[in-house]
Amino acid sequence: MTYTVQVKVMPLKDLLDPQGKAVMGGLSNLGLQGVADVRIGKNISMQIDAATADDAKAIAEEAAKKLLANPVMEQYEISVN
Amino acid sequence: MTYTVQVKVMPLKDLLDPQGKAVMGGLSNLGLQGVADVRIGKNISMQIDAATADDAKAIAEEAAKKLLANPVMEQYEISVN
Repeated sequence: MTYTVQVKVMPLKDLLDPQGKAVMGGLSNLGLQGVADVRIGKNISMQIDAATADDAKAIAEEAAKKLLANPVMEQYEISVN
Repeated sequence: MTYTVQVKVMPLKDLLDPQGKAVMGGLSNLGLQGVADVRIGKNISMQIDAATADDAKAIAEEAAKKLLANPVMEQYEISVN
């Protein structure tokens, strides 16, 4: 069966996120009020052929560890639909 | 109150996603089987000060339209926690 797996990769909380800071500046220049913090990461959507949802998740986990996320700077979350 | 709002920006389904294709090639080179398609987008996490969750969502919607997503190439989804 084919599962749709989402991997969300975000910069670690303790690290600065200059891209997010730039977007926050841009929003303020556009006159948007109330945005206190912005952090920007990646969202990877994969179609995975696997026997079970757990197998699909295991494949995504390996992909995240080996290629998608840099554990020094990023954390990831995996969700299977 | 401060709401955490996630904006997921993904390339439109009908468009090619060269970054996703490159990652798919990388996964195959790493020996990971079963990944049929990969698409890569952005995930923007914002802390928004607003009176209600709907207000926070409206601010995020405006931010997405004006700055975060390019409607010619991308679609977005907003979720408020």
